[in-house]
Amino acid sequence: MGIATTRDTDETYLRRALDLAARGPLGDPNPRVGAVILDADGTVVGEGWHHGAGTPHAEAEALRAAGDAARGGTCYVTLEPCDHEGRTPACSQALLAAGIARVVVAGTDPHPVAGGGLARLRAAGVDVAHGVLVEAAEALNREWLHAVRTGRPFVTWKVASTLDGRIAAVDGTSRWITGPAARRDVHEIRARVGAVLVGTGTAIADDPALTVRDADGEDAARQPLRVVMGERSTALPADARLRDGAATTLLLPTRDPAVALAALTERGVRHVLLEGGGHLAAAFLREGFVDEVVAYLAPALLGAGTPCLADLGITTIGDAARLRVTDVRLVGDDVRLTATLERS
Amino acid sequence: MGIATTRDTDETYLRRALDLAARGPLGDPNPRVGAVILDADGTVVGEGWHHGAGTPHAEAEALRAAGDAARGGTCYVTLEPCDHEGRTPACSQALLAAGIARVVVAGTDPHPVAGGGLARLRAAGVDVAHGVLVEAAEALNREWLHAVRTGRPFVTWKVASTLDGRIAAVDGTSRWITGPAARRDVHEIRARVGAVLVGTGTAIADDPALTVRDADGEDAARQPLRVVMGERSTALPADARLRDGAATTLLLPTRDPAVALAALTERGVRHVLLEGGGHLAAAFLREGFVDEVVAYLAPALLGAGTPCLADLGITTIGDAARLRVTDVRLVGDDVRLTATLERS
Repeated sequence: MGIATTRDTDETYLRRALDLAARGPLGDPNPRVGAVILDADGTVVGEGWHHGAGTPHAEAEALRAAGDAARGGTCYVTLEPCDHEGRTPACSQALLAAGIARVVVAGTDPHPVAGGGLARLRAAGVDVAHGVLVEAAEALNREWLHAVRTGRPFVTWKVASTLDGRIAAVDGTSRWITGPAARRDVHEIRARVGAVLVGTGTAIADDPALTVRDADGEDAARQPLRVVMGERSTALPADARLRDGAATTLLLPTRDPAVALAALTERGVRHVLLEGGGHLAAAFLREGFVDEVVAYLAPALLGAGTPCLADLGITTIGDAARLRVTDVRLVGDDVRLTATLERS
Repeated sequence: MGIATTRDTDETYLRRALDLAARGPLGDPNPRVGAVILDADGTVVGEGWHHGAGTPHAEAEALRAAGDAARGGTCYVTLEPCDHEGRTPACSQALLAAGIARVVVAGTDPHPVAGGGLARLRAAGVDVAHGVLVEAAEALNREWLHAVRTGRPFVTWKVASTLDGRIAAVDGTSRWITGPAARRDVHEIRARVGAVLVGTGTAIADDPALTVRDADGEDAARQPLRVVMGERSTALPADARLRDGAATTLLLPTRDPAVALAALTERGVRHVLLEGGGHLAAAFLREGFVDEVVAYLAPALLGAGTPCLADLGITTIGDAARLRVTDVRLVGDDVRLTATLERS
């Protein structure tokens, strides 16, 4: 059998590469990438995936596994091979050096610096194909792709409210509106993001830890960056949980969401989880900076108390911010609703 | 084969009787009841179900179909046969007159007036059994049983709000927060209740029709009673839709939910759908008169406007009204959440 050329074969190995990619970490500055290398006879001789910033790229891992068998072979990779020397050598160069004859990618890399690998490979005479399983490849790195395309992190607003939209009672009490399953679920989301962000008011009033804890209440190995924004953020008390050293905490003395997001982009954050109150959420929504809402709705009614969302400056129903529900399910006794913002 | 006596046989015919019962109307003053009659040899000789107030009871229908074949036979019925002469003769008497030897019911009738049929039958020497498929029989007549046990109708509060709990924007606009599928769904609920209730404020401000319309926008044949409560209810404008004659409208000049529910019980209403605003809902919730909430949550955010629920007098989270979610699903682009109130 010669070099695999049918679309079915391409899909098979790209699907395998996507499965490998999914083993990579979320919340990382880098995308999740997987690669499969076939020799000239169409036999799998190498596989690899990216384990996170500072470790080899997926193609490099697969090439190392394949060794000389890669010569004249095909490389399946879930994202366009990078074309620049970063913390690791450019993958386009590595593929050429290994004598790869054909490269198949699920999508082209929109990264303004790292992209262009396919063009270089094509110019060097490599048979290049792309556009297979594009949707699956997009979903795999949704937040990273968003960050690359827009220049700012993907923002998920997490809110836990009563059915009538209250996040605290009149006396300020809010523990616990939602149940233990919903609270565990939040930890699973935190484990997938680059940063968790609250306003100074929430940081002082609630004294949250904002760490990822496992089912036993132990801190997880990887922790997202903890971020407090607001002009008074640097005045966070010395004994605040956010200063406990369990994870890195960044104090951003600004009330401007754009400035905060730029600072986080700079630090390699591709996905931010907003966990503040209604004023923080409103500030980000007003600027169009919220991409997704994860709402935990407790089957409870308060009738009064703190609304989950502060004023957006919207006065008529036609101007309401519209979303599209992507998932709704019971999490313990609570309802979790996930929705993405509709861009008009 | 002799008279059917095994539990499996009992379940089989009671299940059939429940299926027949389910053909009966919802929103009726009477419960839904089904009956199956077997002759002395265990052959089905009659079936019947109750078609609504003023029509024959299920047992009477089944007995008429069975004729003389009922003598020495078994009657399966989903609710204890009535023992009083209402608009129709007492079923206990009819069963005795027909010579039925055995009666099997799914539950005992909690109706203070009509119940007692089993005791009379047992006293007359009939073999009596009950307690089979009790849960299914309960579910079949949930609202009617509630009304009989508590002396007031089962109350469902329907609310359509944004994800942040607003039912109208700052300028009062609210059409349409939810989409066409959710609005059709509301008509299906109206078709199942005895009365739809709003406050005078909503009746005047929104001028709703509150009728059941089908997919083509045509009025359905059976309409629930339309009820407007509030001290000013009788001042409803002459050209209000609620005065259009498309369905009966009851104006209740009271702001007391207990008085309103008593008036509706009197009229044979077993299930009330609250469709008013946050103040009406709060008034019923404060008195513990809401049994179920059906919340349509539009994937939209307003940040300001009319809250879906007015003050309940609850000031701390521990006193929140707690519910249990019984169903959650997408209805068109909106989320429908159904929950029952937890009684402490």
